[in-house]
This record gives sequence, C-alpha cells and structure tokens, in this order.
Amino acid sequence: MTGVFMKTDKILLDHGSGGKASSDLIEELFLPYFDNKILADFDDGALLAMEGRKLAFSTDSHTVDPIFFPGGDIGKLSVCGTVNDLAMCGATSSYISVGFIIEEGFPIADLRRILAGMSQTAKEAKALIVTGDTKVVPFGTADKIFINTSGVGTVGDDVKISGKNACPGDKIILSGAIADHGITILTQREGLRLDSSLKSDIAPLNLMVEEMIKTSSKIHSLRDPTRGGIGTTLNEIAKKSEKGMKLYEKEIPIRDEVRGACELLGLDPLYLANEGKLLACVGPEDAEKLLKVIRANKYGKDAQIIGEVTKDNPGKVFMRTTSGGTRIVDMLTGEQLPRIC
Amino acid sequence: MTGVFMKTDKILLDHGSGGKASSDLIEELFLPYFDNKILADFDDGALLAMEGRKLAFSTDSHTVDPIFFPGGDIGKLSVCGTVNDLAMCGATSSYISVGFIIEEGFPIADLRRILAGMSQTAKEAKALIVTGDTKVVPFGTADKIFINTSGVGTVGDDVKISGKNACPGDKIILSGAIADHGITILTQREGLRLDSSLKSDIAPLNLMVEEMIKTSSKIHSLRDPTRGGIGTTLNEIAKKSEKGMKLYEKEIPIRDEVRGACELLGLDPLYLANEGKLLACVGPEDAEKLLKVIRANKYGKDAQIIGEVTKDNPGKVFMRTTSGGTRIVDMLTGEQLPRIC
Repeated sequence: MTGVFMKTDKILLDHGSGGKASSDLIEELFLPYFDNKILADFDDGALLAMEGRKLAFSTDSHTVDPIFFPGGDIGKLSVCGTVNDLAMCGATSSYISVGFIIEEGFPIADLRRILAGMSQTAKEAKALIVTGDTKVVPFGTADKIFINTSGVGTVGDDVKISGKNACPGDKIILSGAIADHGITILTQREGLRLDSSLKSDIAPLNLMVEEMIKTSSKIHSLRDPTRGGIGTTLNEIAKKSEKGMKLYEKEIPIRDEVRGACELLGLDPLYLANEGKLLACVGPEDAEKLLKVIRANKYGKDAQIIGEVTKDNPGKVFMRTTSGGTRIVDMLTGEQLPRIC
Repeated sequence: MTGVFMKTDKILLDHGSGGKASSDLIEELFLPYFDNKILADFDDGALLAMEGRKLAFSTDSHTVDPIFFPGGDIGKLSVCGTVNDLAMCGATSSYISVGFIIEEGFPIADLRRILAGMSQTAKEAKALIVTGDTKVVPFGTADKIFINTSGVGTVGDDVKISGKNACPGDKIILSGAIADHGITILTQREGLRLDSSLKSDIAPLNLMVEEMIKTSSKIHSLRDPTRGGIGTTLNEIAKKSEKGMKLYEKEIPIRDEVRGACELLGLDPLYLANEGKLLACVGPEDAEKLLKVIRANKYGKDAQIIGEVTKDNPGKVFMRTTSGGTRIVDMLTGEQLPRIC
C-alpha cells in the first residue's frame, strides 16, 4: 500500500477532487474490494457485454453548491453528467435513473425548478428518465439536495472507444473553451462580484458524439474533462494508454473573462471543471474532418486541435507554453474546489 | 393537483417514507416532468426493451442511520437493495454501480468495513460492481456516508412479472417474518436496550427468485416490502393491478421479540421495513410448489401463504385479524421512521 492512505486515516476533501487523491482512493481501496475486469478498466462508464450486445453503464452523484448558478443548476448538471459519461463510451442514446437525497424543509418550488431543468435537458439529449428513488433526510443531515444519476445506453458493435486506446500520432481535439464551469461555481460560492458574463458550460454532448461516430472510425479515446479539468483527464488517458502527450498552450481555447478570473484568484484553468466539453484522441487522417463536425455542433464552435499523442514519455503530458517554454502538466494534486459538480 | 402539495410548500420527512406522501410526490411532481411510459409503470425498477433484449434497470439511494447495525451495514444494504429491486423485475443476475457521497473526516477504517460488506454481499448474490463515483463533501454538509446503487440485469423473454399483473385467485406468498429491519434500526437509533436478539433481515433474494422462475411461469407480481412495509407494498400491487386483497393476520410470520418491541413502542409491524423479504402474487395452481422452493432457500424458511388476490374491492387490502374481525390495511400515511434504508 502506497500513496494517500499512508498519510491519513480519514477521508479528506482531496479524495473527491477527481485528481490524484481520488485516483489513489479508487486504486488502493475500492479496486481491491470490488475486483473485476470491467471495473478495473475504469472509463467514464463500464462497458458490459450482455447477451451479444455492448452496453455502457455509468453513475455520478451530484453535490454542487450552490444548486442554482449562471448557466444551469444541479438538475441540468445531473442529466448532462450521465448523458456525457455514456457518450464518452460511445453510447449516444440513454436511459437515466435519478436518485434524490433531499433535506427536510427543502422548498418544493426549488424542486420544481430542478425537475423542469432535468426534463428539458433530457428532452434535448433524447434521454429518457425511466426510474427513480427519493430519500428525505432530517434537517441538517444533508445540504439541500444531492442527485445521483445513472444511465445505460447501447454501443455500436464497431465502436471501440476507450481511455486506453490513444495511439501515437493521434491528434487531441478539445471541443471548446475551458474552465467555464469551475470558475463560475467558484465565483458564485465566494460571492465574488466579477463584472463579467461568467457562466457554466453545462451541455449534453451525445448528439455531437453521434455525428463524430458517423464521420470517423478513428476515434480512439473520448473523455469529458469534468472534475480535475483537462489537465487531469489528459493525464488519465496518457497513463491508461501508456502514451505521452504534447499540448500547445496557445491552441487551448479559454475565454478572456475566465483567464482574468483565474489570474486574479491564482487558479490554473487546466485543472478547473468543464461540464460541456470533450477531449478526443483521433487518428490524424480524420482529425480535420472531425474538427469540422464538432464545430458544426452548437456546443463545439470553438473546438481546436490542442496537441498530439506521442510514443515518447509514456504516461506524461507536456505542454509547449505560449512563452515558448515546455512544462509538465501533472495530475491535479489536492482539491481545487469541493462540491464543484 | 390534489394531495400533499395542497398542504405544504416544503419537502417533509413523509415524502421519503415510501408511503402515501412518497407516492403523491412521484405522481404529482415527478411524473409530470419526466413523463414517459416506462417511468409511469413504476415498479421496483424500469423494464427496458433494448434491441430485442429485456433489461431491468433500477436505482436506490441509501441514507440509513446508524450506518452499522445488528445484521448489516449501509454497504450490505445498498448492494441487497439493488440486487433485490432487479430480482423483483425478474432479473436474477446484475451489474451494479456505486455512488458514494462521503462527509469529510469519515474514518477510512469505517469505509473499509463498508466496502468489505459490499464485496461479500455482491459475491454471494453473484453481482458485479462495475462502475462507481465518489464525492466528498465538507464536514457538516452530509451525515457520514450516503450510498447510491443502481443496477442492470437481463430478464428472460418469457418472464412477465409486474406490480400490475396480480390476478383474482392468486395466492400471496410472503417469504418470511416481517419488520426485522425496521424495528432493529429504530431500537438502535433510540438507544433502546431491549433484551433481545433483534437484527436486520438484510439479504440478497435473487437466487431465491431464480429458483422460483425456474419452477413456475405463474409468478404475476413480485415486490420486496422495504420502506412502508408489507402494508404499503400490498396496497401498491392492489392499486396497480386494480384488484383487491384479503390477508389472514394469523398467517403473517413475525418473531416474538419483534412483536413485543412493536407493542412496546406502539408501532404497526405491517408498516415497518424489511430488507430480505419478498411478496409474490402467484397462480393458485403453483402456490404450494413455489412455497416449497422459497422455503428451501436459507432466506425463505419461514415463508407463508398470507392471503389472496380478489376481484372485489379493487385497490383495497383487507385483513382478517387474529381476533376474527376484518380491518382495512391502508397505505402508510406519515413517516414512521426516517433514514430506515
């Protein structure tokens, strides 16, 4: 046993960060107990072979604080979270379950607002909410509302997308500007009144992925860089694929107001959460074609090729900075922000 | 709009009771937003038709307090909860997802104990835990640990089990003694030192159901009477099937110490939770055969035929009491006990 459990006998906020400590928690604690080949693969969802069909299955609990914020709310987030996790496995249509944990005294008007957002987002994503569960806990034993969504969706026989499939030479496509969700939640929570139009990028990406799959069979890895940001997600792909990555900082889209807020607060946007973006490692011969398809989607207008997969430096991500230097992009260590999603 | 929302603008503990208020919440709030035929059926899980295959899909969030108790813990509960929900749809093997919400500072030793219980129970039930998610929330914003489990399992083509399929003349089989889980949690929580061997009945029932399905094609309805107890579950079947029910109180198994504790505390065991029992409405011609199969399972030794489905009094459950009278058994109104599961 190495890593985080050497240092603490209690669960820390870091363990939920989506970064290094989360990964240690899974590898050192969960995997030994739940040992099986499917879980050990851990992509955004599990890929099940059920009687000749490939089925993606994923789960996500949402504890975002505040529950309403510019660009969305916990309900919209919970539907997109699972729709996107399934899409990253190559499943473009989905059935969703919803598990609510609600604090006694929660306003029904707020619940209606959340349900309306979930309903609208599910319609947009052509996802069906088919089963659910509600628990109410006494006042003070949960903070307002937590929502788990799980989902199942079928994956085409010829689709072979996995975090471990990135190939040397692959182009890395990012579907749009980074850190919108993370910085929005942070400024909301801290009550910062930055004079800006910051809002979360929450969006369902399954229809974009559907078009991508129709366009190319060279999509090797797909991930949505949520908790931990693109820095952590790219490291995960690099490690699982045992390949290196070379990024070009100047190609990574980021809105001016987000960059400004990050500088003001001393945060690295590479590690801030996104809720409507995807990263794709794709064969170079299809990269431009796929970029075009992504840009044609309303959630992909600012897509860019931000780097490539290398044979060298397996498991490591390097970035050529705008100032011309090269730096290593490590996994997120420590928690930038709890309850980001 | 009728019912509970006329009376309150806040979520009450009742809304999570599994009884009348829960049912109102679903029908009046959730269904209008998530309107679709699959959800509207609401059994313990959803039955999906995916490319020619029937798939059961269910979800359950667990918030039980205390998290460790005689007979089990929140981890064992969370695995059995979903295994059993799937089994009640006729799916006897399952893939499980786990979503943890953990309070900052939670002891890792306790988490290990929970994981060990989940692992052991999953093995017993031949269920695979294939995907997961962990969120850590700041100290004081959740009480220790909440666990959501969701599950998928395939259902045989010829299996047609649903809460709406009970037929007049069906025998109602109960697989064992009632109220063990509910009374155990209550006495633990209140710190009552009843000199007894009360313990929860948590158990995976899928292997029992597998044997039942092999034995008979006349299993019409199957449900596990968790929150709300057998009183509420039988009412749900009666309402969905638009049939009546006649129960015989003297046939309903209950342990002496449970009966004693209920009398002492003024609780009706018909409405107390069970976590390792099932109710089956089955064709009378196969009832004895099925009873024998259930009794052959280690979790079904005390199974009894406790009543029958009637054409009269659709949607209502009557009980012939031990004293010879007849009383109506309504749905649970109000919350007997929050955080029971």
